[in-house]
Amino acid sequence: MVGNLRINGDRLWSSIMETARFGATPNGGINRLTLTKEDAAVRHWFKEQTETLGCKVIVDEVGNMFAIRPGKRSGIDPIAMGSHLDTQPTGGKFGGVLGVLGGLEALRTIVESGLETNAPIAVVNWTNEEGSRFAPPMLCSGVYAGIFSREKVDATLDIDGVRFGDAIEAIGWRGTNKAGSTKLSAYFELHIEQGPILEAENKTIGIVTGVQGMRWYEATITGREAHSASTPMNCRSDSLVTAARLILAVREIADAHGPAGLGTIGRLQVRPNSSNVIPGEVFLTVDFRHPQDRILDSMESALQNAVQYLIRSSSTGLRLNRILNCPPVVFDVSCVAAVRTGVEKERLAAREIVSGPGHDAVYVSKVVPTSMIFVPCAGGLSHNEAESITQADATAGAQVLLDAVLALDDRAAM
Amino acid sequence: MVGNLRINGDRLWSSIMETARFGATPNGGINRLTLTKEDAAVRHWFKEQTETLGCKVIVDEVGNMFAIRPGKRSGIDPIAMGSHLDTQPTGGKFGGVLGVLGGLEALRTIVESGLETNAPIAVVNWTNEEGSRFAPPMLCSGVYAGIFSREKVDATLDIDGVRFGDAIEAIGWRGTNKAGSTKLSAYFELHIEQGPILEAENKTIGIVTGVQGMRWYEATITGREAHSASTPMNCRSDSLVTAARLILAVREIADAHGPAGLGTIGRLQVRPNSSNVIPGEVFLTVDFRHPQDRILDSMESALQNAVQYLIRSSSTGLRLNRILNCPPVVFDVSCVAAVRTGVEKERLAAREIVSGPGHDAVYVSKVVPTSMIFVPCAGGLSHNEAESITQADATAGAQVLLDAVLALDDRAAM
Repeated sequence: MVGNLRINGDRLWSSIMETARFGATPNGGINRLTLTKEDAAVRHWFKEQTETLGCKVIVDEVGNMFAIRPGKRSGIDPIAMGSHLDTQPTGGKFGGVLGVLGGLEALRTIVESGLETNAPIAVVNWTNEEGSRFAPPMLCSGVYAGIFSREKVDATLDIDGVRFGDAIEAIGWRGTNKAGSTKLSAYFELHIEQGPILEAENKTIGIVTGVQGMRWYEATITGREAHSASTPMNCRSDSLVTAARLILAVREIADAHGPAGLGTIGRLQVRPNSSNVIPGEVFLTVDFRHPQDRILDSMESALQNAVQYLIRSSSTGLRLNRILNCPPVVFDVSCVAAVRTGVEKERLAAREIVSGPGHDAVYVSKVVPTSMIFVPCAGGLSHNEAESITQADATAGAQVLLDAVLALDDRAAM
Repeated sequence: MVGNLRINGDRLWSSIMETARFGATPNGGINRLTLTKEDAAVRHWFKEQTETLGCKVIVDEVGNMFAIRPGKRSGIDPIAMGSHLDTQPTGGKFGGVLGVLGGLEALRTIVESGLETNAPIAVVNWTNEEGSRFAPPMLCSGVYAGIFSREKVDATLDIDGVRFGDAIEAIGWRGTNKAGSTKLSAYFELHIEQGPILEAENKTIGIVTGVQGMRWYEATITGREAHSASTPMNCRSDSLVTAARLILAVREIADAHGPAGLGTIGRLQVRPNSSNVIPGEVFLTVDFRHPQDRILDSMESALQNAVQYLIRSSSTGLRLNRILNCPPVVFDVSCVAAVRTGVEKERLAAREIVSGPGHDAVYVSKVVPTSMIFVPCAGGLSHNEAESITQADATAGAQVLLDAVLALDDRAAM
């Protein structure tokens, strides 16, 4: 019987479009920053929908919402699905939303079929995944996992100087449950890929085996400001020329650690930035990603070698600091297997994939067996009002999510 | 007798320090933008000093000041010395000032000695050389030479939207003489080098034979904005990587046309300039200099080749536009010879030099036989509050200026 439960793709799509009203932008995107009145509105909608399905909605002290439908067996923690309902200021309709509403649709399908699961089933909406209003991202799944303290998060300020603690109380979504007290036995997060691989390879599903590691660096290159008209080339100390060499070195390091190694210089500032002044200082950031920590070690050591070479071979100074080190995450083998079971049952074109960006699943995986399911998004575009997916892919993703949950629940019968 | 006229170095230095009060900054520099009340104050001071020496001060319609002491012979246009008294917003005490006050000191020395010159002698203060308040630079020597019209200059706006024409009337320095009507038989401009060559080679005087040509370009490189975490290296269209290749190409082109060829990318802007976004667009400027126009042609053609290569070999777009083309200037042979005569007479360590930056002499040379005299400045530093020269070098420069004027005046006797 379980094998016959089918996601209602129209209902899922219409729920996505219904919630897209909360914070809708003229360009077809969503501006629903965390803990705003738009966020409160979508939270009320979500609570109402899940309560209609017979769920009890638990809200913890940082606003994480757990809509839980009881199972047949007591003493088992819920199997959870979820993601987040907050968006970037010019966000799309699908990032985060698909994981929560895909979970809601899976739950609706279960309820509609009359199936009583062994374990309780939960749909989770994590507070402030985006980090656009309160940095850093994945803030409240981080509190759930014990990465951040409630006190620290409460004290976090937005750009207008509003405390997180005051913002959550202002919209009335501070719960009484201690964060982390709502235990889960497994967590599945459905998400758009936010990258071009699935689309390029014509795959419907990405079986996410983990999240790549990330290391960030800041570099400051110090040259000597001088007049472009009167400083001979051999007397120059041009920080931008050294920066150019570093940009190409980062590119080479990424290529040498490909195809999984990624290296990006996304931010670069020139001082004084005047057409006829040799740049005295360049500031830039380096972003390295790879699924394996030892390869990130190797990329970092190659970067340090490049920096040393540039210091020796140029007249400029160069200071490099690592400012962030997020090790790779490997998802739970059983959860990944449950996703694979769903993919095989549905005969969908799929591939294993390592997530590029971080997700709530990164922190949740520290305390709960976790995995993720990706569906393609057009052109890999995300964090953008033009973010776009097909209804067929959304349906397929929610179907695999449902299948994975039920596959795991089958084992909970024993 | 002429051979015995000696500049009074202490008097020159004390005049420099006296005028440095008008717009003095806490860091020892000068903020005396053109046509401000500080500029008006130094103009009054200059008029008073030169009238005391028996000069008649003519002010033209764009505020250029000509302080003229009559000579013995009628029908000869004045031999002029000069430069400008306006400064950058964080300018130094010497750039421009030395040329006017060196001329003033030369005139004082002549008057003090009782010498009656054959030709009239003029000291000129050109309006708005810096171009900091009203762009472009060398604006009113340009009007004098017929490069710019008075109407165009009057309509030029500063950053607050104030018209040049209103600004000059507000400080009461609009003269009645038509610009260009005050004819000169020669023009000598003493200036700090604004470069490191004289200092590096231990030379006191630069015999300036001309001003190098300059070509400016703007380039826009168009890539595709994408997430640094999820875009494989081989799917990227990274505008900053192409920019890095262009920066190194410009450097190579300059080196290949050395030692006189100069190439600088001074301004570069990255969009969206965010650590985890592959740069979608880079805007940058290219500044080429060389004393010979045909070499500038060759540098330009090498740049175009590099651009074509980058377009073919990358996935980014690249648009290059030339926005400025100032051909090289060759100074008058007789004027340069007069400067050399002064240098030889004083037995000073000197070298011929081509000016890097533009000066009022560039435009004046279009209508008046012209040359320039450079003295070293510490570290080549200019347009900076820390700009620094020695009293000995200032004195030597003014002495050569006086010698050159008198050498030319000797010939006017015939």
